[in-house]
Amino acid sequence: MAKELTSRSENYSQWYNDLVIKADLAENSAVRGCMVIKPYGYAIWEKIQAELDRMFKETGHENAYFPLFIPKSFLSKEAEHVEGFAKECAVVTHHRLKKDPDGSGLVVDPEAKLEEELIVRPTSETIIWSTYKNWIQSYRDLPLLINQWANVVRWEMRTRLFLRTTEFLWQEGHTAHATEDEAMTEALKILDIYADFAERFMAVPVLKGVKSPNERFAGALETFCIEALMQDGKALQAGTSHFLGQNFAKAFDVTFVDKTNKLDYVWATSWGVSTRLMGALIMTHSDDNGLVLPPNLAPFQVVIVPIYKNEEQLTAISEKVVEISKKLKVLGITVKFDNNDNKKPGWKFAEYELKGVPVRLAIGARDLENNTVEVARRDDLTKETVSMDGIENYIDTLLKDIQHNMFKKAYDFRESTTREVNSYDEFKVEIEKGGFLMCHWDGTPETEEKIKEDTKATIRCIPLKGDITPGFCMVTGKPSLRRVAFARAY
Amino acid sequence: MAKELTSRSENYSQWYNDLVIKADLAENSAVRGCMVIKPYGYAIWEKIQAELDRMFKETGHENAYFPLFIPKSFLSKEAEHVEGFAKECAVVTHHRLKKDPDGSGLVVDPEAKLEEELIVRPTSETIIWSTYKNWIQSYRDLPLLINQWANVVRWEMRTRLFLRTTEFLWQEGHTAHATEDEAMTEALKILDIYADFAERFMAVPVLKGVKSPNERFAGALETFCIEALMQDGKALQAGTSHFLGQNFAKAFDVTFVDKTNKLDYVWATSWGVSTRLMGALIMTHSDDNGLVLPPNLAPFQVVIVPIYKNEEQLTAISEKVVEISKKLKVLGITVKFDNNDNKKPGWKFAEYELKGVPVRLAIGARDLENNTVEVARRDDLTKETVSMDGIENYIDTLLKDIQHNMFKKAYDFRESTTREVNSYDEFKVEIEKGGFLMCHWDGTPETEEKIKEDTKATIRCIPLKGDITPGFCMVTGKPSLRRVAFARAY
Repeated sequence: MAKELTSRSENYSQWYNDLVIKADLAENSAVRGCMVIKPYGYAIWEKIQAELDRMFKETGHENAYFPLFIPKSFLSKEAEHVEGFAKECAVVTHHRLKKDPDGSGLVVDPEAKLEEELIVRPTSETIIWSTYKNWIQSYRDLPLLINQWANVVRWEMRTRLFLRTTEFLWQEGHTAHATEDEAMTEALKILDIYADFAERFMAVPVLKGVKSPNERFAGALETFCIEALMQDGKALQAGTSHFLGQNFAKAFDVTFVDKTNKLDYVWATSWGVSTRLMGALIMTHSDDNGLVLPPNLAPFQVVIVPIYKNEEQLTAISEKVVEISKKLKVLGITVKFDNNDNKKPGWKFAEYELKGVPVRLAIGARDLENNTVEVARRDDLTKETVSMDGIENYIDTLLKDIQHNMFKKAYDFRESTTREVNSYDEFKVEIEKGGFLMCHWDGTPETEEKIKEDTKATIRCIPLKGDITPGFCMVTGKPSLRRVAFARAY
Repeated sequence: MAKELTSRSENYSQWYNDLVIKADLAENSAVRGCMVIKPYGYAIWEKIQAELDRMFKETGHENAYFPLFIPKSFLSKEAEHVEGFAKECAVVTHHRLKKDPDGSGLVVDPEAKLEEELIVRPTSETIIWSTYKNWIQSYRDLPLLINQWANVVRWEMRTRLFLRTTEFLWQEGHTAHATEDEAMTEALKILDIYADFAERFMAVPVLKGVKSPNERFAGALETFCIEALMQDGKALQAGTSHFLGQNFAKAFDVTFVDKTNKLDYVWATSWGVSTRLMGALIMTHSDDNGLVLPPNLAPFQVVIVPIYKNEEQLTAISEKVVEISKKLKVLGITVKFDNNDNKKPGWKFAEYELKGVPVRLAIGARDLENNTVEVARRDDLTKETVSMDGIENYIDTLLKDIQHNMFKKAYDFRESTTREVNSYDEFKVEIEKGGFLMCHWDGTPETEEKIKEDTKATIRCIPLKGDITPGFCMVTGKPSLRRVAFARAY
């Protein structure tokens, strides 16, 4: 088979790369670190977008659009923020090319140098808060609940498709509030939306928590996150929601008159998920045969492959397929009928396995005689022959079962690889096996840094739920308020 | 009233600018030439996107995503293309900032200079065709029907919100075909989609035609376009669809093996509409009171304003509103109930007029007694009091009527200002009055250029339909194959 993948056990990283490319999800472009998202991959991203967008709007958020470019001086206004992003900025310095006087090529026209350089947005807090200054005067203008779907650029030296690319697609929410409480509530509400989406749509169980100061967003007072666990035992940060306090309001002088007629700075949050979610989706579920997609995000949930020897058989099967497809569509199930005559059924079976289509139906001449159909599920690769009667309800239930089963499998895996570790020696051994290690930590950045240097593990989060028994730091023996989740991460 | 607009007769250009800003559609940003699209404006754009996306998918197109950046050398590969875009490019030259050694600011890090400059895409033909090279080998890989929703940057010196901005949002389709015929058919199919969308959704009548060579897209063999007429008598190009021949396939060496086993270059089209459509929408329909939105694109189609003297009355009205809203929603009609207690009904009436909401319902205590409601339509500013019984069907019909009426009004205006002109002297007088002037032209770029210099009018298109009687050029007296449409344009 031409499209065979490297197996996960052989080389997990190569398996991932093979899969992304061979399943037609994305590929590297001619531009260093930038990817091309191919139609099949983009169709999954569109489903992710549609559902999140619905959830944001249901909770009162509106979409808007802010400029791609940020004046260089804006970045400097929030001290920590600039620290975090200045080193990975794409900088626009000129606005024109001209013919190379020495040859046939193009050169930058030195006369078209910008007075102030423009940064291609790595994130939009600065340009948005400079805009909010004009939108907010009174508590009546608050809250402002705005989201943007956009591309952003962070100049990464080592890139991997979906997981870390120089340009990526994301949504970024930027909200403004009259009180600290309200902003904090918003940041947590979004965290819940992210977790809910990850679990119900992506079938990816996530740990909700707070980041340690080392891992906080540049400019935030508190960063909340959802952390997922990949099949190789490494964690992946799947979304973040930041409580920004009054930092950006102060940097851009955004004040408002409150109900008591007092002037105060506005409180802020920002939050985002990106095409990185595609990486989490792929690595949580897929296997050595290819992608495994949860029915709730599959571009099409059912593929029907006809098995025939001649035109006459194909016609008879096609008629039956039209009938079945109609019934499935009524239930909101998306179906593809692959009657391409250039490819053999075996090739198609492998292709749709590679592409992770949740359910495959195969119908042959004998099936027509027997009023049956062969149903294959992608998640556990089982097959069975069932009656055509009521097939639509059978498949509807099956899709729900697959969605549930995929979540459960991922959840069980995470639970089985999450364990308490009490000594640093034990930690060094256990971290090699992957998974979340729940350990006591003295709360200092120094200890966290030491652990990272020794073991490449970081604190993924301080979970919002779970065991809060105090103890003693596994490294320094100093008091610890509670266990936190360590892992190696993407 | 704080939000009064400049009237159209006083200063059309100022009226447009006032309207865009006061109706909360968009505003200028801190970045020269870039706009902020505000939530209300963006909600209209989302409706435009949703419908076009549906139409593209229904005709077999898929979405994908290509990089924001284009290597400088790519631009040079198609000679005319580079000619058209090199002068208005945002150029990325560095990938890092560092602290200014002399002070507290940031400077570009000279050590982070890119080997090859990157251009922020002004359009994506080059990066996409460099990618297609790897996707296409055989006629079996064709046609490739791909669309992208994206932001693009063209460094404009004189910008106007929506109409001409340095950054704008658009969709760009890029298709690849095995034959010239098929590519030409695709370019025309898309033109039909654009025209259909403009007329049925935007209620904007458009002239479908071909561009003269002077106005062709840089790199195209033929540019088809839809041209709309604004209320001030100026034309606006609302969408273009290009037949690119084999130009980009040759520039990027994209060949395929055809059915007869012969190697040939691939045939191409590209096509796009942008946030410029927002400008066309606004300028076609709006009046001195504000925006007038066609029901098919209004963020909400109906607003309900309660008229009450006390809490008790508001409660009774609210109950009725819930009932009406439910019935409207069943019919797919979007409704906003504005029960904001801080604003008076008069203020709300003016506000929703400014925002162009197609239908306004006002319900007071007396209406409850009489089982009536006041219905005001935005397009012709008429009001009537109707019975609550069957109100949902009444409004459903009314919205269709408004949609139709808006189109008809715009169509009648265009027809009344489209006229045949036979001498150049007459032309110079008539062009001052606006509208499309249908004139004979000798087919040369020189004559077209002269007319532009003398009168600022250009050939908007050579219409695909209409009078094809030959005649003589109004300027040179040379033979003319047919009349073409002249106008001054945005």
